[in-house]
Amino acid sequence: MKVGVLGGGQLARMLAIAGKPLGIQLICYESIENPCANSVANIIKGDFNDENALATFAETVDCITLETENIPLTCAEFVAKQRALLPNEFTLKITQDRLYEKECLQSLQIPTAKFHAINTWDDLETALNTFNYPAILKTRKSGYDGKGQAVIHDKQGAVNAWEQLKSHELILESFVNFASEVSLICVRAKNGEVKFYPLVENEHREGILRLSKAPFIHPILQKKAENYANTLVTHFNYIGVMAIEFFVMGNELIANEIAPRVHNSGHFTIEGARTSQFENHLRAICGLPLGSTETIGFSAMYNLIGEEPVREKILSIPNTYYHSYGKAARPGRKLGHITINALSEDALNDSVANYLKIIK
Amino acid sequence: MKVGVLGGGQLARMLAIAGKPLGIQLICYESIENPCANSVANIIKGDFNDENALATFAETVDCITLETENIPLTCAEFVAKQRALLPNEFTLKITQDRLYEKECLQSLQIPTAKFHAINTWDDLETALNTFNYPAILKTRKSGYDGKGQAVIHDKQGAVNAWEQLKSHELILESFVNFASEVSLICVRAKNGEVKFYPLVENEHREGILRLSKAPFIHPILQKKAENYANTLVTHFNYIGVMAIEFFVMGNELIANEIAPRVHNSGHFTIEGARTSQFENHLRAICGLPLGSTETIGFSAMYNLIGEEPVREKILSIPNTYYHSYGKAARPGRKLGHITINALSEDALNDSVANYLKIIK
Repeated sequence: MKVGVLGGGQLARMLAIAGKPLGIQLICYESIENPCANSVANIIKGDFNDENALATFAETVDCITLETENIPLTCAEFVAKQRALLPNEFTLKITQDRLYEKECLQSLQIPTAKFHAINTWDDLETALNTFNYPAILKTRKSGYDGKGQAVIHDKQGAVNAWEQLKSHELILESFVNFASEVSLICVRAKNGEVKFYPLVENEHREGILRLSKAPFIHPILQKKAENYANTLVTHFNYIGVMAIEFFVMGNELIANEIAPRVHNSGHFTIEGARTSQFENHLRAICGLPLGSTETIGFSAMYNLIGEEPVREKILSIPNTYYHSYGKAARPGRKLGHITINALSEDALNDSVANYLKIIK
Repeated sequence: MKVGVLGGGQLARMLAIAGKPLGIQLICYESIENPCANSVANIIKGDFNDENALATFAETVDCITLETENIPLTCAEFVAKQRALLPNEFTLKITQDRLYEKECLQSLQIPTAKFHAINTWDDLETALNTFNYPAILKTRKSGYDGKGQAVIHDKQGAVNAWEQLKSHELILESFVNFASEVSLICVRAKNGEVKFYPLVENEHREGILRLSKAPFIHPILQKKAENYANTLVTHFNYIGVMAIEFFVMGNELIANEIAPRVHNSGHFTIEGARTSQFENHLRAICGLPLGSTETIGFSAMYNLIGEEPVREKILSIPNTYYHSYGKAARPGRKLGHITINALSEDALNDSVANYLKIIK
């Protein structure tokens, strides 16, 4: 079985590693030289608008998936004519645009922050009259890891944000004063079966995910999240792994973002669950039965951002696993991650304290 | 870090997969075209007697390990002059020759079957006078998966066995009427730390391992096995994973074979232990701290021999994992393995029964 992946970054890399034992070979389509999946997958280099290269890619594979939603929709629509695109191009159209995504969530009665489409300065001025400060102005497309957004605290902030972002299609969102951020990773098989991992609690800094802890045990929120996720995957006729990020407000969840792919907050599943999100994504899109999403103990996943720590020290912490993505160091770049696992929350906290002492 | 591996079969393949997250790249030296590690590791093709190709290989890597003991000792000695060979060439010299191995075990007071070196028909005739039938005539070198051996039940059998094997250096071993076969996988780090996985119970058929079940819980035998293993790794100044196969006779262990490498009976550790034997071997030879060898639940590992079953059916069994080696099917060939894991022995037995129903 040959699976094509639009993108060749670390998510493709981890998918490719998960595919090896299953006899599933990955072929990544990438516009950049030497993407980090290149030591585990075949790479076809091409621009995402190059229909000749895309056609060659599509012909090479049995089905196509993606590791980023930031690809031109035309590219997805083009390859989907040749091979099954899983998840489908409709899902991509909605989830790559914050406005469509919010409208979709709203139409499905899934709570979101208040939002407004912004095309002109007048739109922004008018919308701000009905929003409380702070509010967040975001590009509708291509934002990730906190890029393409500005927090507006006052009128002058609105002017600055507009100047910064006005060349894009925009959305204004109200600021949610959340207690915590969680995400739900789920996977839907071709036969319609859906499995859910337990909620993960996430900490961001400077817009980038730093830490995920799982399981976040809260039966009421788990149930709500699963219901919302089920509604979404049914609506999209979704196949594969999907992640939904939520803000927690007491016993309520406010949906923030949908990722139509394996997700950074699901990396803990490699060691911390009976089947990793990567294997389950491949099982789903290849028509294989899903694996168990039960967790093993308690996990904390730290992203390695900008630099990689000394592996010798990190690996001396019990049940700690190192994942290098084979990338050159660069400030703000995700270079790898570390998963710390333990059979009790206390033991996990001890190991985490140990880890934080080592890396500081 | 670049690790060279002498051999490019499924053990090298699984080592290479385990190396990816650690940022360890494998370069395999192989004499055959397209060995099964080739989709996850770089391959340098060359004969094991080709010193030019071996020198190029050694220069390319930081250290060298092996996935088979069936390589010429001269090859190991040659590369060891250029790069650290882990485990070392002394270990290889002993473990690739059944006579040296038995003599070594005997000298270290580790029980073995009765044995005798056989160079002539007279040696065999004389030895058989002091052995009970059945006895086993084996080639001293290059035997694996039951190849290069003949069971002798009577005088005529001795004649036949001699005719079949006389072109080799031979050893006669008494037949051990064992209750079961077990193996111990251990790993020794550069700092001398040794970790042991729990004993594994093995079932062979036609000389090939079919099934491994772990953990084989028997504190007395576990303690004995660990003591023997500790004696051996200290004696060899061993670095990396080593496996020892034992026959069980009541509360006694009879050492049968030492494998100076990751071992088929340790494949269950990929899902059934906190750190796989493959990751621990790489951690050891790269000077990294060892990972935990604790098991996760109960595991049964079945080799896929000669043909691969339908993956869809196999993967519908809860907590069952498929490992294809990407090899062409051929009678008697190990094409992959399946690990079934469960949190209780009863649940494991249920899943195993389910598996056996599917594959029959």
